Amino acid sequence: MKIPAVKGTRDFYPEDMAVRNWIIDGWKRVSLRNGFEEYDGPIFEYLKMFQIKSGDEIVEQLFSLKDRGGRDLALRPEITPTLARMVNQRINSLPRPIKWFSVPRLFRAERPQKGRLREFFQWNVDIIGVDDVLADAEVIFCALDYLREVGLTANDVVVKISSRKMLAAVLQVIGVPESKLDDLYAVLDRRGRLPDEAFEEMLEKQLPDTAKRQKVLELMNAESMNQIESMFGRQEAFDELVNLMELLNNMGVGDYCRFDPSVVRGLAYYTGIVYEIYDKASQLRAIGGGGRYDNLLHLFGGPAISATGFGIGDCVLGILLQEKGLLQRQLPPRKLDYFVAWVDQTYRRAAIKLTMNLRSAGWTASFTYKTANLSKQLKEAAEQNAKTCIIIGSEIAKDQVVVKNMASGEQKLVNFAEFCQECRI
Amino acid sequence: MKIPAVKGTRDFYPEDMAVRNWIIDGWKRVSLRNGFEEYDGPIFEYLKMFQIKSGDEIVEQLFSLKDRGGRDLALRPEITPTLARMVNQRINSLPRPIKWFSVPRLFRAERPQKGRLREFFQWNVDIIGVDDVLADAEVIFCALDYLREVGLTANDVVVKISSRKMLAAVLQVIGVPESKLDDLYAVLDRRGRLPDEAFEEMLEKQLPDTAKRQKVLELMNAESMNQIESMFGRQEAFDELVNLMELLNNMGVGDYCRFDPSVVRGLAYYTGIVYEIYDKASQLRAIGGGGRYDNLLHLFGGPAISATGFGIGDCVLGILLQEKGLLQRQLPPRKLDYFVAWVDQTYRRAAIKLTMNLRSAGWTASFTYKTANLSKQLKEAAEQNAKTCIIIGSEIAKDQVVVKNMASGEQKLVNFAEFCQECRI
Repeated sequence: MKIPAVKGTRDFYPEDMAVRNWIIDGWKRVSLRNGFEEYDGPIFEYLKMFQIKSGDEIVEQLFSLKDRGGRDLALRPEITPTLARMVNQRINSLPRPIKWFSVPRLFRAERPQKGRLREFFQWNVDIIGVDDVLADAEVIFCALDYLREVGLTANDVVVKISSRKMLAAVLQVIGVPESKLDDLYAVLDRRGRLPDEAFEEMLEKQLPDTAKRQKVLELMNAESMNQIESMFGRQEAFDELVNLMELLNNMGVGDYCRFDPSVVRGLAYYTGIVYEIYDKASQLRAIGGGGRYDNLLHLFGGPAISATGFGIGDCVLGILLQEKGLLQRQLPPRKLDYFVAWVDQTYRRAAIKLTMNLRSAGWTASFTYKTANLSKQLKEAAEQNAKTCIIIGSEIAKDQVVVKNMASGEQKLVNFAEFCQECRI
Repeated sequence: MKIPAVKGTRDFYPEDMAVRNWIIDGWKRVSLRNGFEEYDGPIFEYLKMFQIKSGDEIVEQLFSLKDRGGRDLALRPEITPTLARMVNQRINSLPRPIKWFSVPRLFRAERPQKGRLREFFQWNVDIIGVDDVLADAEVIFCALDYLREVGLTANDVVVKISSRKMLAAVLQVIGVPESKLDDLYAVLDRRGRLPDEAFEEMLEKQLPDTAKRQKVLELMNAESMNQIESMFGRQEAFDELVNLMELLNNMGVGDYCRFDPSVVRGLAYYTGIVYEIYDKASQLRAIGGGGRYDNLLHLFGGPAISATGFGIGDCVLGILLQEKGLLQRQLPPRKLDYFVAWVDQTYRRAAIKLTMNLRSAGWTASFTYKTANLSKQLKEAAEQNAKTCIIIGSEIAKDQVVVKNMASGEQKLVNFAEFCQECRI
């Protein structure tokens, strides 16, 4: 009986797993050097946890299930609610600032598309307990520290930055009531992902007044803070953005960053700085995004503590790295320290024993399962990219083995006890 | 609104995540040096995939869900069916033997108990395409290579080894019909986990004949192959077990291994060698287990290719490592290469810039978010286990910084450009 994989999921064969590991290991290494500690939560939570304050878009896309007692659960579509739950549980004992990262496996029950699967990994980096735009700058730096390390330049990727506070201030000037803001953000966020006509129709529903609508579009299309200031007047909320840009310049990543008022973010819980990371050519979906969410912990039953963070998925990033040739160039080859061959079956037992001893001493070592002659074994050693081949034959009676350097082809007879000592066996 | 975690799941706070990472990184490192390549599949598969040939126990314990089209899915309770599916999909292009490992996150919808949670990690190591007990020996060696490396001796853990072939041969001698074997194995597997009375009742249902039942119990209680031979006569199926024990001795792990005919394994798909790994004191559930499953690929629509492998979960292993004090002794401390402090706010900007430059050069580096004086910053550096503290003050005007060795307390003025060069900034 042949059963296929579920659509929108991935099988990670060793060559795919090597890519996944290379990406995730990089995320982890960069997070640690930026001073973040790793955490994780369960794959599923109570369904209602994801209904508290996420955008409608996410709740529609949940994989739901039940436990044995009939309670509604859901596979996590994001880890931020879990983060809020975990931090709230220990809010009195955790030293602040809380600088945490995670690489959760996430799930969305939507139609699979290029760069958007039902099951994916997402790098999450958050700072909780710092009410200073410096924390927003630090998490953005962390994302760029990784993207720069894997070889993506400011010509390849861009961080488009805006601010919900700035948007709220200008929308107030335009005359949009505060109660309308959340719904309006959800619509504005879909611009560029919807056909123009569909977007305009949705916007009209939120804002029937043509003049106001026109002004909102002018705001979205503005190319600089100065332009917005000249159109809508100077707002206090602008200072934070100016400050952020200065910090990012000081940190050495200013060339990757650009002010862009059309960035709104879909999730309802953002309260301040928001940003999205794109390929510069705008051929792909967002690589990632994030922002400040100062009310989330409170919404999950905790105190009002400020927080900021981002998420970067593995799908779009993987496509971009592939397209730029950066994966192919940097993936480490499979390595084998020792291949242990035998001249004939008499020495097989000794070869197996040596292989196991080498492994226990920390070396990557292999032998053949085939009853192959020596030249075939040497071929297998070469195929496995072995650095050194040990050949066990009649010389073992005189405590000697042949050691062959696979790169140079050079062979020499070596005292076995000395070889073992060198290998710390 | 406060929502708890789902029972039987775990929150991994940084200190828990450090343990999880230390265990899983060890599994990965040992697998690689034993010549295995990593793979993984999706978290969920079509429900029917897990119904094909797993024991009833597993199918009862599935978390099931539906995709948007209403198709039945299930969270994976084991990865072997996925392995069979993936190998079958590429059976003609994969070079053999296939030596693969995986560390899947698995799910069982059962009542949580000590060492048995609803969500856990399991190390899986398999060799496909080698019809030789040497492959069984190699995977058992791999498990013991890890257990030995983390400090568990032959006084701490034991691999109890038996064989379905041996059992089948002896049960035939006793007079159990072949059609009864699968059901009988399922009952025998539960001995020791059920109260004696309940076990005997189940056994009686399968084997109403008292004399036969008595002989089966004698078989289960036998302490050596010789004893079984003297009771039931010599069987060809014994050779493989003798051969396996010799190989494990040759590999240097014989002291961990013991013949034990009471080991049967619950899953229906085992066909040859079977084994379970226990703490020597028998205080805990099985640490892991495995065996040969030569028919599984065929059952999943592929050719008849032999296979053998094991699984070790993280829960019981974690408890044992904790109880033996092995976790506490070996967990690496959190490391910080540089803490960058400033003498007063004037130098904060320069300190942040230096921190970011150090990170991009690969160092783990930190600064404070607090507006703290120097002595408080030095205290924070010590708390974060910093090796070196860089202090930026008025000397920076002369291109100098203070470099403080946190272990010795020694401080010196260093030329800033030279320091940067040394750090490859």
